[in-house]
Amino acid sequence: MNIAEPTLLIDKNRVVRNIDRMLERAEKFRAVLRPHFKTHQSVEIGEMFRERGVEAIAVSSVSMAEYFAGNGWKDILIAFPVNLLQLHQINVLAGKIKLGILVDSLFSINALKNGISNSVDVFIKIDTGYHRSGLVFDDIEIKAIVDEIEVSSLLNLKGFLTHAGHTYEAKGIDEIEKIVKDSSTQLEVLREKYPKTIISWGDTPSCSLSENLFGFDELRPGNFVFFDAMQYHIGSCKMEDIAVAVACPVVSVFPKRGEMIIYGGAVHLSKEFIAADSNFKLFGYLVRLNDGKWQLPINGAWVSNLSQEHGIVKMPKKELEQFNPGDIIGVIPIHSCLTANLLQSNCVLK
Amino acid sequence: MNIAEPTLLIDKNRVVRNIDRMLERAEKFRAVLRPHFKTHQSVEIGEMFRERGVEAIAVSSVSMAEYFAGNGWKDILIAFPVNLLQLHQINVLAGKIKLGILVDSLFSINALKNGISNSVDVFIKIDTGYHRSGLVFDDIEIKAIVDEIEVSSLLNLKGFLTHAGHTYEAKGIDEIEKIVKDSSTQLEVLREKYPKTIISWGDTPSCSLSENLFGFDELRPGNFVFFDAMQYHIGSCKMEDIAVAVACPVVSVFPKRGEMIIYGGAVHLSKEFIAADSNFKLFGYLVRLNDGKWQLPINGAWVSNLSQEHGIVKMPKKELEQFNPGDIIGVIPIHSCLTANLLQSNCVLK
Repeated sequence: MNIAEPTLLIDKNRVVRNIDRMLERAEKFRAVLRPHFKTHQSVEIGEMFRERGVEAIAVSSVSMAEYFAGNGWKDILIAFPVNLLQLHQINVLAGKIKLGILVDSLFSINALKNGISNSVDVFIKIDTGYHRSGLVFDDIEIKAIVDEIEVSSLLNLKGFLTHAGHTYEAKGIDEIEKIVKDSSTQLEVLREKYPKTIISWGDTPSCSLSENLFGFDELRPGNFVFFDAMQYHIGSCKMEDIAVAVACPVVSVFPKRGEMIIYGGAVHLSKEFIAADSNFKLFGYLVRLNDGKWQLPINGAWVSNLSQEHGIVKMPKKELEQFNPGDIIGVIPIHSCLTANLLQSNCVLK
Repeated sequence: MNIAEPTLLIDKNRVVRNIDRMLERAEKFRAVLRPHFKTHQSVEIGEMFRERGVEAIAVSSVSMAEYFAGNGWKDILIAFPVNLLQLHQINVLAGKIKLGILVDSLFSINALKNGISNSVDVFIKIDTGYHRSGLVFDDIEIKAIVDEIEVSSLLNLKGFLTHAGHTYEAKGIDEIEKIVKDSSTQLEVLREKYPKTIISWGDTPSCSLSENLFGFDELRPGNFVFFDAMQYHIGSCKMEDIAVAVACPVVSVFPKRGEMIIYGGAVHLSKEFIAADSNFKLFGYLVRLNDGKWQLPINGAWVSNLSQEHGIVKMPKKELEQFNPGDIIGVIPIHSCLTANLLQSNCVLK
């Protein structure tokens, strides 16, 4: 492999295994898997899902929806509160494919109603505890939104959707199960009130780990296709399930300091980190690369800091002495969605 | 202005003022300004420097050097430890322009010597206390590198270069001046030992604030062209010097929570933040936009968290009630270099 700059390596076998496992889980819970494509944003990886029978996907922007619609995807949910400044593009898309959008205010549903001439599926976003977007399940605004949808011939109330992002902060499976149950209870109240609706559920930690996903009609995890150091820390995956590593040129080696400098910084990996305490930040694990493949991380080695293009790697002296400037080392990223977004134009799937 | 997605707004008047001030400071200290173009990566902004007489620039990658060489820049320093995997491109570039490169090991200088057929200026990177790349000023490896350069007909020892990035952690001007003096003492030892060399000095905090830059032949700040919230916190600039804001669509408004959700996340702003304590993270200030221009931030409002595409904004209820989904708000970024890198293909210079 001829690598000279930071490059995202994607291990195809691991991707396939991750997809297959999630499909099995969806089947077990009798849910449709609607994978979130924001993680990979790749037509090629999309194809791997399609080959396994996946037909419905989620994306996080109108431009991503346009991109995948242009590649033959016919059932796309823009899982982001509707951006009223893109109503024209949304309407054009809705004329071509089965388009789902997300709403969490009366203001937006009214603007949407007046701005479209094609049929659109609407999910109402419910905040079950993450406190990003969405309405609380007993907010009276939900009924007002439903009423507006029902008088419109173009808007179809598809269901209620949540992203329980607080599973990322959960400490262990018990806390994740608690979030699933709490959220489920809230969402069931809505389904009982509006019987023809479905419940759409997301987030990689719960979709990977929970044994209580019965009752959700649709699962929308995204990150699981690659996983990353953060998911490993949460417990969603094993280290050997992580399907991406960034190949980085070594530019300086300082055995006395126990450090090396790599060409691989915030513009390649993102500044996401895991903080163990105020003095320890983890920006990535290190792996040896062998023809674009890798095994477990090098013991006692980690990326300790990033600037725009530099990464600082801490490593035991014995390991460090095996590297010279001009060598290539792999970094297991903290958050694969952000890393893949940064390296979209520089990746190798193998 | 027709904005529908997160867009980098660049205030041309502020950019010009920031450039002019830095040129005055360079003149005062009798140094050449070699601005670091990694911050903006923009041909158009490069042109604003050129119109003011700037001829020498710094960049942080070979591809950036190729980009600006392709736009008529003839004196470019790649201010990053030489990437031996790109020796071919480096050699091609060196055949076209006056190219400077950075070395901090005997290993790299030997590989360089054997890999090029065109003349290259070499700076030896000195670590004066930041502990990223570079050799300590009294490391015996420096003499070994100089010896290798001197026996080569293609390598010219240009001088010693440092990036005192620890000024970013300095608390106030006294600590910055202390870093400048400490570093200066170390670098002067080298210049005395190697009399025909120059000293190249970087970093926006010291170049903006220090009164002790005499003795440095070249100044390489980059960030000052835009500044950002981090530089404002360090004291390098006033709020009204910050020349960039990201225009973000408002997608949800929650007056009860004192929050709004904007379309503007980690893939637009980067995950860089300022931590005031363990419970407070600042991902950006908020400004009202008026035809692409802005004044001081909205009191009591800040971006409190970012996910891939969402930003969470905290704002006093009274202010919040003036916004609806479909409005646009401006975010003053924490680290303009990373934000500008992410929004390169979506910016407006006005």
